[in-house]
Amino acid sequence: MFWVTRRYELSASHRLHAPALSEEENRALYGKCNNPYGHGHNYVLEVSARGPLDPRSGRAVDTNRLDALVRDRVLDAFAHRNLNEQVEVFRTVVPTSENLGVEIFRRLREGWSTAFTGEWPKLAKVRIAETPRNIFEVASDEID
Amino acid sequence: MFWVTRRYELSASHRLHAPALSEEENRALYGKCNNPYGHGHNYVLEVSARGPLDPRSGRAVDTNRLDALVRDRVLDAFAHRNLNEQVEVFRTVVPTSENLGVEIFRRLREGWSTAFTGEWPKLAKVRIAETPRNIFEVASDEID
Amino acid sequence: MFWVTRRYELSASHRLHAPALSEEENRALYGKCNNPYGHGHNYVLEVSARGPLDPRSGRAVDTNRLDALVRDRVLDAFAHRNLNEQVEVFRTVVPTSENLGVEIFRRLREGWSTAFTGEWPKLAKVRIAETPRNIFEVASDEID
Amino acid sequence: MFWVTRRYELSASHRLHAPALSEEENRALYGKCNNPYGHGHNYVLEVSARGPLDPRSGRAVDTNRLDALVRDRVLDAFAHRNLNEQVEVFRTVVPTSENLGVEIFRRLREGWSTAFTGEWPKLAKVRIAETPRNIFEVASDEID
Amino acid sequence: MFWVTRRYELSASHRLHAPALSEEENRALYGKCNNPYGHGHNYVLEVSARGPLDPRSGRAVDTNRLDALVRDRVLDAFAHRNLNEQVEVFRTVVPTSENLGVEIFRRLREGWSTAFTGEWPKLAKVRIAETPRNIFEVASDEID
Amino acid sequence: MFWVTRRYELSASHRLHAPALSEEENRALYGKCNNPYGHGHNYVLEVSARGPLDPRSGRAVDTNRLDALVRDRVLDAFAHRNLNEQVEVFRTVVPTSENLGVEIFRRLREGWSTAFTGEWPKLAKVRIAETPRNIFEVASDEID
Repeated sequence: MFWVTRRYELSASHRLHAPALSEEENRALYGKCNNPYGHGHNYVLEVSARGPLDPRSGRAVDTNRLDALVRDRVLDAFAHRNLNEQVEVFRTVVPTSENLGVEIFRRLREGWSTAFTGEWPKLAKVRIAETPRNIFEVASDEID
Repeated sequence: MFWVTRRYELSASHRLHAPALSEEENRALYGKCNNPYGHGHNYVLEVSARGPLDPRSGRAVDTNRLDALVRDRVLDAFAHRNLNEQVEVFRTVVPTSENLGVEIFRRLREGWSTAFTGEWPKLAKVRIAETPRNIFEVASDEID
Repeated sequence: MFWVTRRYELSASHRLHAPALSEEENRALYGKCNNPYGHGHNYVLEVSARGPLDPRSGRAVDTNRLDALVRDRVLDAFAHRNLNEQVEVFRTVVPTSENLGVEIFRRLREGWSTAFTGEWPKLAKVRIAETPRNIFEVASDEID
Repeated sequence: MFWVTRRYELSASHRLHAPALSEEENRALYGKCNNPYGHGHNYVLEVSARGPLDPRSGRAVDTNRLDALVRDRVLDAFAHRNLNEQVEVFRTVVPTSENLGVEIFRRLREGWSTAFTGEWPKLAKVRIAETPRNIFEVASDEID
Repeated sequence: MFWVTRRYELSASHRLHAPALSEEENRALYGKCNNPYGHGHNYVLEVSARGPLDPRSGRAVDTNRLDALVRDRVLDAFAHRNLNEQVEVFRTVVPTSENLGVEIFRRLREGWSTAFTGEWPKLAKVRIAETPRNIFEVASDEID
Repeated sequence: MFWVTRRYELSASHRLHAPALSEEENRALYGKCNNPYGHGHNYVLEVSARGPLDPRSGRAVDTNRLDALVRDRVLDAFAHRNLNEQVEVFRTVVPTSENLGVEIFRRLREGWSTAFTGEWPKLAKVRIAETPRNIFEVASDEID
């Protein structure tokens, strides 16, 4: 199997605040990231797909299709947005990078079979670097 | 003269919107960055000071003093904040990286003589990378 | 004055070979870069413009116009190309990064007054990193 | 087990063109990378080996031996070259990064037992970044 | 499972010298790194923990706790130090990055159950980049 | 004029301690960097030369000559060394990055006229990044 990873950048803002928790608990849990006015990041998103080599093309993944899928399902919806206010799911789910990874994974899987009609490639991993010091990865096993 | 540059990172959110302009003009001018809900960045701030070598210490700038000045005047006020809502000047001034640079320059110059009591070092340049592809620099000549 | 710098990446191939010189001289001068079959790079191009702050927009440079100019005059012509074979000037001029910088400068200056109709901003500097270890800069003074 | 990874850079040119396919199919499949004159990249190659700690040296891999093997089998043959024209296998195989990874893996495995005479370390993974946005990995399982 | 990785930087000096070996063997084995006066690095340390999503916080790892653990057990003891002279274990163990990884792993595991009281997250991997070209990883399986 | 910059990396150790000052003054001035056992860095050295284009070669600087000069005068003497103990001048001069820059500048200037026999290129600037956050530059004007 080959792993093919594409890197994308998206600038967005968010606020970490769990509706189920009190103000005090939120402040204790998220610190500065709980700031009511929100803050933002240049998220670096890496999407990895895996598959065997297609002997015809010498490639494992059609990266044009992958780029189009990521653009349509993720970048167009998230880039230059306020995640809490402008991405439906994050009205009720805290937009931590973990939850962001799950949502991106869900959106890509939803469109996957349209973008890639064969058995391969498969979506393998979503990696989000909120900053270069703070990195989150979720693989296909988690998402079910 | 030596140039000493320190790099800092700060995550914040902003919205580009000029009060003097119409909605249409703002959209045309700032595009996605005019999104009413705002978006954000991991700003990379570089502050450069210049001065001669202090033969006693073998240094041109006391970087502990510079770090403390940047922390007190800039990072504590801007990091993890919504610039439009939480930094006074940006209620009326558009928080472009150019204006952000001017404001940072002003704040550092304001505290400079307290942090550095001698003739040297002097504040030389403020550089802001909104993203790795989008870089803004302002030198002392502009700020008056 | 403010400096605004935009970063672009372009992958291209080239061969360093000076027609005026003998094979031996070319090999001595350019070493491996004289390989007749050529080789290539992910060039990192940085274009810097300088100008005063436009109080209306809070910006010194309309980066949309700059990006369009660089795309139309440089990226569309150079990216994914063989510079020696597919960029007219490099049929006779050696495509060193110095000459590449001069050509890019010329092309940008040529279109500048159409892209930027006012006195400002001015094209200030072109920087080319052939690799992260090998960097070339040319400022407006050289190009005349 | 420990993983030890060494990073190398090599500048080369290539053209993506599958002999079995028509011009139209090639253009559709590879887009700009099908340009007949070729283009190039600064490839970033990472070679990973795994093994237990050698208590005598406190190391898992003799990196001098690994560097020599990579230099002799890969860098000397690929760096500053036109892959299609100057690396035998790519006269008939499309030099995609997937195929480049397979070929590098084959070459390293071929010389491995001469460079490393014991049971360990084993060649574990070859990773190629064609650009920072476009990354290919192949592990030992694929190569047989 | 989610993987959460935090990146830390620490500057330290070391000398590679195996007490069990002769001067000649040490020189042959470690080359310049055997220099009796030592040399140093800006080590980039990445610590990865894995665990399920905590639905209450939307996070898999409390990064404040992880940062505090790494600071208390590793950074305070290693940063700006001479590893051979100032970290007890390296008086007898060669401070290769492999052994450095093992020691960091041991220190983190030692404090883990105090920092993280539940079943999850678990310490998953320690990655040390001695330089950007020279990378060492050790996972939980090795450390027993 | 063109600026040509070459980047080099060197790992070394140092201790910041001014002989003229008391222990207390040294600790206050240099903090952790005064640690008697020393610490180390992966220094990133950038050497910039400037000159006009040589129409014959299409280059402004013969980078092979520059690399050889830097290797002979600087890298061979500093890399994998303890600067305080193994570089003569730093037995009496504090090896701050400012003084390191001055010494590198002196060494390069000393060998310059042998490496570059014409009027151009001239040594323009030495830049040292002790870490990515801590950058020192010295230009030709300072060194006299």
